[in-house]
Amino acid sequence: MSGNTFGALFKVTTFGESHGPAIGAVVDGMPAGVEIDLEFIQSELDRRRPGNKAAGSTLRKESDTVEILSGVFEGKSTGTSIGMLIRNSDQHSKDYSELQNLFRPGHADWGFHAKYGFRDYRGGGRSSGRETACRVAAGALAKLMLKSISEIKITAYALEIGGVRAEKIAFDEIEKNPLRAPDSQAAEKMAARIEECRNDLESCGGIVECRISGVPAGWGDPVFDKMDALLAHAIFSIGAVKGFTVGDGFDAARSVGSVNNSAPGAAGGIRGGISDGNEIIFQAAVKPTPSIGKVQSMPGIDGQMHDFAIKGRHDVCIVPRVVPVIEAMAAIVLAECALAQRCARICSENF
Amino acid sequence: MSGNTFGALFKVTTFGESHGPAIGAVVDGMPAGVEIDLEFIQSELDRRRPGNKAAGSTLRKESDTVEILSGVFEGKSTGTSIGMLIRNSDQHSKDYSELQNLFRPGHADWGFHAKYGFRDYRGGGRSSGRETACRVAAGALAKLMLKSISEIKITAYALEIGGVRAEKIAFDEIEKNPLRAPDSQAAEKMAARIEECRNDLESCGGIVECRISGVPAGWGDPVFDKMDALLAHAIFSIGAVKGFTVGDGFDAARSVGSVNNSAPGAAGGIRGGISDGNEIIFQAAVKPTPSIGKVQSMPGIDGQMHDFAIKGRHDVCIVPRVVPVIEAMAAIVLAECALAQRCARICSENF
Amino acid sequence: MSGNTFGALFKVTTFGESHGPAIGAVVDGMPAGVEIDLEFIQSELDRRRPGNKAAGSTLRKESDTVEILSGVFEGKSTGTSIGMLIRNSDQHSKDYSELQNLFRPGHADWGFHAKYGFRDYRGGGRSSGRETACRVAAGALAKLMLKSISEIKITAYALEIGGVRAEKIAFDEIEKNPLRAPDSQAAEKMAARIEECRNDLESCGGIVECRISGVPAGWGDPVFDKMDALLAHAIFSIGAVKGFTVGDGFDAARSVGSVNNSAPGAAGGIRGGISDGNEIIFQAAVKPTPSIGKVQSMPGIDGQMHDFAIKGRHDVCIVPRVVPVIEAMAAIVLAECALAQRCARICSENF
Amino acid sequence: MSGNTFGALFKVTTFGESHGPAIGAVVDGMPAGVEIDLEFIQSELDRRRPGNKAAGSTLRKESDTVEILSGVFEGKSTGTSIGMLIRNSDQHSKDYSELQNLFRPGHADWGFHAKYGFRDYRGGGRSSGRETACRVAAGALAKLMLKSISEIKITAYALEIGGVRAEKIAFDEIEKNPLRAPDSQAAEKMAARIEECRNDLESCGGIVECRISGVPAGWGDPVFDKMDALLAHAIFSIGAVKGFTVGDGFDAARSVGSVNNSAPGAAGGIRGGISDGNEIIFQAAVKPTPSIGKVQSMPGIDGQMHDFAIKGRHDVCIVPRVVPVIEAMAAIVLAECALAQRCARICSENF
Repeated sequence: MSGNTFGALFKVTTFGESHGPAIGAVVDGMPAGVEIDLEFIQSELDRRRPGNKAAGSTLRKESDTVEILSGVFEGKSTGTSIGMLIRNSDQHSKDYSELQNLFRPGHADWGFHAKYGFRDYRGGGRSSGRETACRVAAGALAKLMLKSISEIKITAYALEIGGVRAEKIAFDEIEKNPLRAPDSQAAEKMAARIEECRNDLESCGGIVECRISGVPAGWGDPVFDKMDALLAHAIFSIGAVKGFTVGDGFDAARSVGSVNNSAPGAAGGIRGGISDGNEIIFQAAVKPTPSIGKVQSMPGIDGQMHDFAIKGRHDVCIVPRVVPVIEAMAAIVLAECALAQRCARICSENF
Repeated sequence: MSGNTFGALFKVTTFGESHGPAIGAVVDGMPAGVEIDLEFIQSELDRRRPGNKAAGSTLRKESDTVEILSGVFEGKSTGTSIGMLIRNSDQHSKDYSELQNLFRPGHADWGFHAKYGFRDYRGGGRSSGRETACRVAAGALAKLMLKSISEIKITAYALEIGGVRAEKIAFDEIEKNPLRAPDSQAAEKMAARIEECRNDLESCGGIVECRISGVPAGWGDPVFDKMDALLAHAIFSIGAVKGFTVGDGFDAARSVGSVNNSAPGAAGGIRGGISDGNEIIFQAAVKPTPSIGKVQSMPGIDGQMHDFAIKGRHDVCIVPRVVPVIEAMAAIVLAECALAQRCARICSENF
Repeated sequence: MSGNTFGALFKVTTFGESHGPAIGAVVDGMPAGVEIDLEFIQSELDRRRPGNKAAGSTLRKESDTVEILSGVFEGKSTGTSIGMLIRNSDQHSKDYSELQNLFRPGHADWGFHAKYGFRDYRGGGRSSGRETACRVAAGALAKLMLKSISEIKITAYALEIGGVRAEKIAFDEIEKNPLRAPDSQAAEKMAARIEECRNDLESCGGIVECRISGVPAGWGDPVFDKMDALLAHAIFSIGAVKGFTVGDGFDAARSVGSVNNSAPGAAGGIRGGISDGNEIIFQAAVKPTPSIGKVQSMPGIDGQMHDFAIKGRHDVCIVPRVVPVIEAMAAIVLAECALAQRCARICSENF
Repeated sequence: MSGNTFGALFKVTTFGESHGPAIGAVVDGMPAGVEIDLEFIQSELDRRRPGNKAAGSTLRKESDTVEILSGVFEGKSTGTSIGMLIRNSDQHSKDYSELQNLFRPGHADWGFHAKYGFRDYRGGGRSSGRETACRVAAGALAKLMLKSISEIKITAYALEIGGVRAEKIAFDEIEKNPLRAPDSQAAEKMAARIEECRNDLESCGGIVECRISGVPAGWGDPVFDKMDALLAHAIFSIGAVKGFTVGDGFDAARSVGSVNNSAPGAAGGIRGGISDGNEIIFQAAVKPTPSIGKVQSMPGIDGQMHDFAIKGRHDVCIVPRVVPVIEAMAAIVLAECALAQRCARICSENF
């Protein structure tokens, strides 16, 4: 069925497999008149690019160049749907036939087989993390739209990697270290932890935190489309995410009412599903990427278990590359809320 | 804007304020031919009913009787939309005028005001937990539908209340104690903790865990409508929820690939957004209910802070009443996935 | 499946069968702050009420009283979903068992059976024209919203009944004759034609025309959600409609470019799917109601043909009662377009 | 806002302007396992191709080659979204600057300007008929899907062009004459009429009829998503359409009940919005294309009227090229209904 569209007003539809000719996105609902800065979109894609050496990636030279096909005229959005295309550069580089009849552990392989009866097994096909490049491109458009409306600033970072936690949150350090940690010293320890995992043919995960300033009070809809519910949906739709919290998250479950009501940051900027004007704070738990070099036991299409080591390039830790994806999904949710807000009151002068 | 509908194929639309004449739900998408057991629907509503004494509720006699208005004929669903109505029995019982110009801390009051310019301030209006009764009624329909398809069993319980954690998961103990803990001994400690909070004019939260057995492999859609993303959306749309995890959740962020790939339960029954045939396990963090008897400082519509004690009946701990709401939302998501699954392959004989 | 919701931003969901306890509608997306005039809503329902004697109805005393259950506070919309309920007053008045095993010609009976395997056969169940009462109630809300935005005036009337055509369009005569013809003299001939049909145990149809003034240029969306496409969907969803045209309609098919481009009214106020600021004009062809007193041959569930005369009260001509339904659906489409328009440009000052 | 998606289960999203780098479509909801015949898709596009000489087109050599980017593996649909791309071959061939400040009569130019504040004025931009190529490509996928399910045959043809009507409906003559008339002799008269219009620097319209056999009884949903309502929406979303009828259409408005109930073809295969198992028949009125060579008076952005002759290649009559577009939209609606049908009953064995 159709699960390749996100959003109702700011609507993102994506397509593309890891090893097909191209991936792409259609953004429908971008209001007319937004300045479309192509360099910014490309720079966001570059942040997600494979080949982050500190994160334990083997170097790849994928460029992920985005081509805007429609919806932009003379540098501005026209109000019509924006088609974006990213060609896959090396789709024929590897023989995947060994994986054809195996279901890699921790991956969607078995689920796809059970669901559809067969699958494009090359590099994970549609379930590959590669599809998140389209989210980043669409999220860049959302950021451009939000910039036209308000001084909204979305900042995600690696709060924790492989059990090593940042001890401070310094925004200006985030993009200065390859792990996107808000604490350069912690970043060195994270890098060491990643190196350790690489030597063990292992992978590790972490926690991404995201802070959003500048969102006015009143965004988000009550009941089913609460802002935190939309964020939960958006963030949990990213492959490796296994947990999502807002504000104090699970700590709130151990607090008492008077404390939780009044502590700064406890609500994470969203109360009753509606932004309260404070900084929005959420966290996502990212599991270790399931692709590891170690020999693993995995089921085959023949019903037997097989010992197999997955070859090829693997990121030891995808957390630094998930950071821009999380920002992108947050931006897409906020763009949705920004547009929905225009319909909240009958008197347009209130907006 | 419109945020009162959840789902695309099994579509639930709700309406109603805490102190209006009635609340209700329309369920659209129920296939024809499902046996509609009215007693079961009512019994689910009774599980959510106010007046759980052990949970620190002052006794109320609200009956929450549901009336089925359409979509059922001769005991079976007809395939058309099912309207359900629950009258509010005591909507005139209290004077809420004191709250008219105050924004209660931890509540959606301020957000509603910022969003809409004014609000039905009586008992929280649309943001009251009372709307969850409609979710429970709709969830009961979803459970009846799922029962017709597969041996799916959804079981939620209070894993932790006020910092007291269940030390075992005994399904048969859950409905035997008023806290819905899967461990009767822990339930007693939880009750003591609640009593303590009541004496302090405080409230406390907890963690609800939900386990779902019987879901076949292959349910859930890749990319944006992953089963865990839909669950995250559904569970986070419940007012008091501040955290959601699947399987090992935040612990996965500290694991390594080979362990996370192979540990039973680590994935929580969902990989790449698709059910893998194993038990589905998720947790939700429930914050302490913000309504407490203590004097609190709260902003007024006049821009000043006011010290004020909110009168009236408050649950000290809503966790036991959230349990059936979480089951209901899980059932609604699964009903959606079950129907979506019918469109996954061209050959109907595969389903 | 779910086909009981219309609209995305101004979203109308209805439920209810002809002979169930009640019918109702939920309107989600009404902006906050619209004055809700209950008398106006009721007066719109009264226009649709059964018992139009001139139209050949046997007198019925159904009151169709609407109860607003939510979403309105102190006389204004709150921005939350508006639940509306209309009790069915005489659902037990007749024995429908004879129709249980027959499929009435021209009705949806056979389709429902083929689709769902069984059906609520009492009075047509969900396929009864009774469901249009909910559309009228929702349309009244849409009209109230539109009134808050712009001087939009929606006027439908019986252009033709039983082959008798109005020879002038005098708006002030429409509600002065029971046939809602814009020409009182033609109305008399229409009434005579209806009387003739009644004597023959027949029914007749007609053409409803609708004119809408005050819609600003720029409403409606290109490509799939053109304003005329939404109107076509809305009007064709009314049971008896078999044709829909905008402006010159089928006459345009015989015109040439220069004439069609420049003739006033040819475009019907919509070009390329977008309102051009001129009066919007459309027509709907209404077939003769299939319920007639004559003996007809109809298939039975037994696979045989049966000669049968359907008993009970039938409108000879439903056209006058379709008029307010068509206005309602037009209003719902315009409310949708009005809200969508708020998201068309990034600069809100342009709206 | 977002109006570039059609359908809920078989969901088609398109993008692209007449003179941008490319147009394209994403089809989401195609079940896995459908054989994807690329030659068939291309052949459908070729039927819509510009350069139909008999229809008064100046010859163009646009190839409209479609590239499938995703969702197909080893010749079969995988269940994931199918991206399709059609490059625009001659987007720089002409200087459109003269049209920048004029609003062509009968076109969407003025509407786009009023809506968005500015527009891509080159060749009509997003409002160009060029976008229908994407509909044809998506419709070809829908036809392939339908072929896997049932012996459904969709046949559209030019029933009337420039006032010349086909006097017989011979399916085997349709593709043998360039006007797609089901009557070769009438086709010659149509061609003469078109030649006449060309000499007059005029254009002409016509009526397309579409017949669909093989649709089982029971497809289509009651109330708002009636099959005829979806068809009306789909067909009216094609730029030049000004009228849509099912079965006897406006003639039904002049019939009486007993005749309309029993005449073959009167219902057009759809009763109460649900297919009845008979042939589905509908008609669409196509206005003369507004692009003509004659000098016309048209408003400018300066508020003045300007006499201007639009240069360039124009089809005198687009009806033959609309024929495959109408088939495509009908196929997309039927694909939606086919999938929806899978959710109509709880027992899958009934389907």
